[in-house]
Amino acid sequence: MIAKSMKDLVENSSAIRAMFEEGKKMAKEFGAENVYDFSLGNPNVPAPETVRESIRRLADTVPPVQLHGYMSNAGYEEVREKIAESLNRRFGTSFEMKNILMTVGAAGGLNVILKTLLDPGDEVLVFAPFFGEYRSYVKNHQGVLRVVPPDTRDYRLNLEAAEGLITEKTKAVILNNPNNPTGVIYPEKVIRELSDLLVRMERKFRTSIYLISDEPYRELAYDGAEVPYLTKYYHNTVVGYSFSKSLSLPGERIGYLVMPDELDDSVDVVAAASVANRVLGFVNAPSLMQRVAADCLDAKVDLEFYDNNRKLLTEGLASCGFSFVKPEGAFYLWLKSPVADEKEFVAEAKKEHLLLVPGSSFAGPGYIRIAYCVSPYTIKNSMPAFRRLAAEYGLC
Amino acid sequence: MIAKSMKDLVENSSAIRAMFEEGKKMAKEFGAENVYDFSLGNPNVPAPETVRESIRRLADTVPPVQLHGYMSNAGYEEVREKIAESLNRRFGTSFEMKNILMTVGAAGGLNVILKTLLDPGDEVLVFAPFFGEYRSYVKNHQGVLRVVPPDTRDYRLNLEAAEGLITEKTKAVILNNPNNPTGVIYPEKVIRELSDLLVRMERKFRTSIYLISDEPYRELAYDGAEVPYLTKYYHNTVVGYSFSKSLSLPGERIGYLVMPDELDDSVDVVAAASVANRVLGFVNAPSLMQRVAADCLDAKVDLEFYDNNRKLLTEGLASCGFSFVKPEGAFYLWLKSPVADEKEFVAEAKKEHLLLVPGSSFAGPGYIRIAYCVSPYTIKNSMPAFRRLAAEYGLC
Repeated sequence: MIAKSMKDLVENSSAIRAMFEEGKKMAKEFGAENVYDFSLGNPNVPAPETVRESIRRLADTVPPVQLHGYMSNAGYEEVREKIAESLNRRFGTSFEMKNILMTVGAAGGLNVILKTLLDPGDEVLVFAPFFGEYRSYVKNHQGVLRVVPPDTRDYRLNLEAAEGLITEKTKAVILNNPNNPTGVIYPEKVIRELSDLLVRMERKFRTSIYLISDEPYRELAYDGAEVPYLTKYYHNTVVGYSFSKSLSLPGERIGYLVMPDELDDSVDVVAAASVANRVLGFVNAPSLMQRVAADCLDAKVDLEFYDNNRKLLTEGLASCGFSFVKPEGAFYLWLKSPVADEKEFVAEAKKEHLLLVPGSSFAGPGYIRIAYCVSPYTIKNSMPAFRRLAAEYGLC
Repeated sequence: MIAKSMKDLVENSSAIRAMFEEGKKMAKEFGAENVYDFSLGNPNVPAPETVRESIRRLADTVPPVQLHGYMSNAGYEEVREKIAESLNRRFGTSFEMKNILMTVGAAGGLNVILKTLLDPGDEVLVFAPFFGEYRSYVKNHQGVLRVVPPDTRDYRLNLEAAEGLITEKTKAVILNNPNNPTGVIYPEKVIRELSDLLVRMERKFRTSIYLISDEPYRELAYDGAEVPYLTKYYHNTVVGYSFSKSLSLPGERIGYLVMPDELDDSVDVVAAASVANRVLGFVNAPSLMQRVAADCLDAKVDLEFYDNNRKLLTEGLASCGFSFVKPEGAFYLWLKSPVADEKEFVAEAKKEHLLLVPGSSFAGPGYIRIAYCVSPYTIKNSMPAFRRLAAEYGLC
């Protein structure tokens, strides 16, 4: 009796989440220390101490009616003001409070901006491999997903293929930088090329094409890599941000959208996004966490923890003979499957209590995503299992 | 360039929210003490002290990775367990953890269950006057809203009219008890009649009709009134609950759905609702607040505060000559407009710095909603303005 669309979704439910649930079961059965769960992007680095201090200070000093009450659907004005100032300081932008809308995480933000922009049948371009939930988010608002095939040489953007897929119905392009699942960072040169392409296509079709920059991993960039701030390169950019990874608060569902004045119909977009936040049932971003985020804008999780994991994992996997895309950001490694059907490899890995996610879940078959936001011991202890798999597949 | 559907929504945006924003502006201009804002259901009663204690205790004792991390999309198992036990204790039900899904407030919960149930074109019945957001929630999932006209004698349910509107396409009925905007509580007798009707209609059309009981105001019942627990009366009942009012946490967005085993296809509904929570972008209910809610299941806001307001307001308005439906629950009073076009009255009231919401926003024209979740001083100080209006319209 449930909706037909939900029947399909339940059956083909997120392989990531299925693996996460499976991992919890296996941990109960075999002991957590004997299961190597690389499935979910659930940070293992604690939130910075300032988060705890902020929560305590707010609970002690702000009257509960203000601390936990409704505010404007867009969020607290002082919080949005502080975020705008922080962005301007860091990126030389010139946002104001009105350009910021507080959201229920990045997932909430993406749904808000898609609801704001999409008429039924409007097309949304994504670059494979991509976070599988985009498929559902676009469908929620009756959009049509167009998938740009990957450039498997370097997993940068395949702009030639993108050009062929842009039509007069293309309303938005979603870019995820640093990328989940590949760990690639698109550098300034690639961003300029993308911007040029979109400007050309807007002129060609006389349309507005909104670039939605999904940036939950912005702060996780290694070796001093720069993640370009996209509003500076393309006028029709909306940024979706989340504190899930930068402050290790994924369960709290707190993030924001940036909607610059330079957007076509910016005033309408801003007004509609606030209404969309309400009518989609988010109403507003969680109130206490809005203030916590504003308190902790200069705080960061321990990047070295992830960087150390990255080194452990890349060195370990390389020494086993595995191939992979060099991870530059986020906390994912994009492993080349030693067999064409990577699902087979993932199943074999599970026998070794290694929980990985097949690339097909990200429209990137033949590859496997390893989320290394885990304890370094998990990585160290998993290496014998990876080595046995490598041997099994003749890699070493 | 925004979506056409959003254009309409922005133009006809929530009169409640518009009034709330207007009120904030007027408060700045004339001073908060000179504006009588009865527009929004934003509780003026502080959260119980146990909320603050719980937040502090959790921040001090639970490791941040557990406190703020991802959990299953349905929520923490121990939280859902405690909620099931609490319900069983209070209402003699027999729910288990699996029957509970933690949601981003009641608004999130309603969207989750509608996404779970509705195929495009499925019909959802609501009883006028009703919370205007239901209209958007149903549309979000391509459902079709069918509005049962009110029984203006007592604002109980107009079941005769409902029967005429139920078809083989009716997938759900939303009931809000205690009711926003009327403040009426539907007693057991009415609930039995509704249940009988739905059972008959299910047999007639050989369909499943899910009753969605939206219960954010359950704990706000005066004069010892009982609010029947609907799962005990009708097999296909899904309960949506929120802690927004019971614990004065509306900004925190925390609530839950109850999906009993007795539902048709209960296993499918439960599985799909969890997936819907994820794909709609909620992902999960805010993590810290899940634990706070579980800590505070036996806590309640000061009901006497609202009850006192209710007395102040009803006595004051009656003495001015106004007519209204006797408020039994929630914190709303349903005032009969002294002129047919209640928007005219609302505009006149605004000149007196009285912010009210026209009944048309709830499909209840000719009436006005007064939200009395305000300071008692607001009520006392507003009375001269109400009296002047009463005189203007010849009521006294």
